[in-house]
Amino acid sequence: MSKTTLALIAAASAATGASITAFLYSSTPKQTPSPPITPVTRPSTTSTTSAPLPSPHSTSAPLPIPTSPVNPAGILQYGFPGPSGDLQTTPAHLSTYNRALRTPHFVAEHITPTSLLLNNGSRRLSTFYEDATLPPIFRAKLADYARSGYDRGHQVPAADAKWSQEAMDSTFVLTNMCPQVGEGFNRDYWAHLEEFCRDLTQKYPSVRIVTGPLYLPKRDPVDGKWRVSYEVIGSPPNVAVPTHFYKVIYGEEAGDSPIGKVALGAFVLPNAQIPNQKSLGDFEVPVEAVERASGLTFADKLPAERRKRLCGEVRCEILVRQFDDSRRMAVPNVGGGAVLARS
Amino acid sequence: MSKTTLALIAAASAATGASITAFLYSSTPKQTPSPPITPVTRPSTTSTTSAPLPSPHSTSAPLPIPTSPVNPAGILQYGFPGPSGDLQTTPAHLSTYNRALRTPHFVAEHITPTSLLLNNGSRRLSTFYEDATLPPIFRAKLADYARSGYDRGHQVPAADAKWSQEAMDSTFVLTNMCPQVGEGFNRDYWAHLEEFCRDLTQKYPSVRIVTGPLYLPKRDPVDGKWRVSYEVIGSPPNVAVPTHFYKVIYGEEAGDSPIGKVALGAFVLPNAQIPNQKSLGDFEVPVEAVERASGLTFADKLPAERRKRLCGEVRCEILVRQFDDSRRMAVPNVGGGAVLARS
Repeated sequence: MSKTTLALIAAASAATGASITAFLYSSTPKQTPSPPITPVTRPSTTSTTSAPLPSPHSTSAPLPIPTSPVNPAGILQYGFPGPSGDLQTTPAHLSTYNRALRTPHFVAEHITPTSLLLNNGSRRLSTFYEDATLPPIFRAKLADYARSGYDRGHQVPAADAKWSQEAMDSTFVLTNMCPQVGEGFNRDYWAHLEEFCRDLTQKYPSVRIVTGPLYLPKRDPVDGKWRVSYEVIGSPPNVAVPTHFYKVIYGEEAGDSPIGKVALGAFVLPNAQIPNQKSLGDFEVPVEAVERASGLTFADKLPAERRKRLCGEVRCEILVRQFDDSRRMAVPNVGGGAVLARS
Repeated sequence: MSKTTLALIAAASAATGASITAFLYSSTPKQTPSPPITPVTRPSTTSTTSAPLPSPHSTSAPLPIPTSPVNPAGILQYGFPGPSGDLQTTPAHLSTYNRALRTPHFVAEHITPTSLLLNNGSRRLSTFYEDATLPPIFRAKLADYARSGYDRGHQVPAADAKWSQEAMDSTFVLTNMCPQVGEGFNRDYWAHLEEFCRDLTQKYPSVRIVTGPLYLPKRDPVDGKWRVSYEVIGSPPNVAVPTHFYKVIYGEEAGDSPIGKVALGAFVLPNAQIPNQKSLGDFEVPVEAVERASGLTFADKLPAERRKRLCGEVRCEILVRQFDDSRRMAVPNVGGGAVLARS
């Protein structure tokens, strides 16, 4: 890993009235820790009575211990505690789920010029639904979002899955949702970002987008300490409200095949009103910054020589068309269109 | 799942000056969601040019789609984003790790009358060390804890691993640590709880303890909303400071074998000063409450007929011996001894 200093000044950008989060990262070479962790094989049952015991406190003459007197892995007889990850594949996306926060870790989608031209699904026929594949105590619930003040914000946009009604429907599972600020974000700037992604298919024959929530610290102006603070909606509280969202975008020049260059772009936006005048480039961050903040890894199998910087290839701006307000009111998640300006 | 209403009033207990967290849960039967998520097999490459295209917006006459035009699972060519879990086994514990928070999800240990009598390891010979098995950007670092004001709090106590120096050493990996309030908690009440666990081996031939951090919401008295708020230590900020800690305890009557009754007890304590006068029973919660809060599952393979309630079997109290202050200053994590009073 190269020596880098990254600044994820996610909303420092935002002259939005939203809270300012400056999340600074520096990665410097670490010293190697002293005792390495060595996996230990142990008998499946342990003897708790037959072993000869040394006298207590006989530190001066320790006895040799042929086998371990304990079996920590025996906890697995009661089940693996987790995290489970809950890897899911639907027609429209692949995702893992955070059972503690009741939001996804990430949701990955794939769009192509072809998939976006197909028009066999309508969001008007789809309804939001809870994820029955999850144990009930870990599910986000429809009731959690009701009267919360937040939109049920698609991570994979419904508009990217018009190629079949089944695909469209599958984007309405709550596992694909996070609580998002509606006006000024989900229905506006965030929707323009989604349109920016779709427009990338004009340049790339295959585009992948990984989307998800972040919970970032901000510095307390009073005591100077960094704190993460986020709301939890539902009664009782159940679903975490992310402070930010990320998108990691892969523009695959050679299509969906493991060759060719890939234009990588990562963006982190605050879950807050963002004026349309803000440049999308202001939200660009190194991919590694999203990795540090999310605990995820996005491109460890993509060699450096295949990488390009997306915002070096296209102009990272949203262009907002005049809203059709009646349509926008009826279908709030679709938002306004945006036209990608090429560099 | 039975219809239950659980109250995890974790620190409501605490006349400690610490923040009051009331985390209420109710589990009621959920309605079944409409469209089930169906795993979809897809070709490994997709055609982006050869498929005949319908005219845009031809919703009136959708074409049949023989195969999906997209391949969301193709993201895996760049690596699995996560969560990884980082399952680790050391001589003293088994754990998984939260790469986003840089604290463990859980750390599981096993103690027996035999293991506690063996005395072949000394904490004075052990040193804290970073976990080299983790990618550098996800590691908790020694520097994060330095001058943070928090102890490097063992989740599996060093004192439970005296049976070998190697086991003792392995408890000093930062993957086994969380930032803990020192005075009044890690060096006091929490240490007494650890002693309570050890004393359970007087009754049970085999005791398992799963320990870990929690990040619980509390109700804002001003706007009535629930929020999680926690500090992140390090410069740049790196390691989350838990608001609470849990222990799930398994008293195995038949030893380390998959038969016999298991006395289960779960406790949630605030990461704050707790007076020694507080009853341990005040921190008892249903196991399910820890599951909801942590996203983990602790006993899904333990049938109901094998379960007992720990605090119905033993008196859940700590009894504090007179401190030897000189020893306590020298070895802060050991804390004072506690004697388990049986019911």
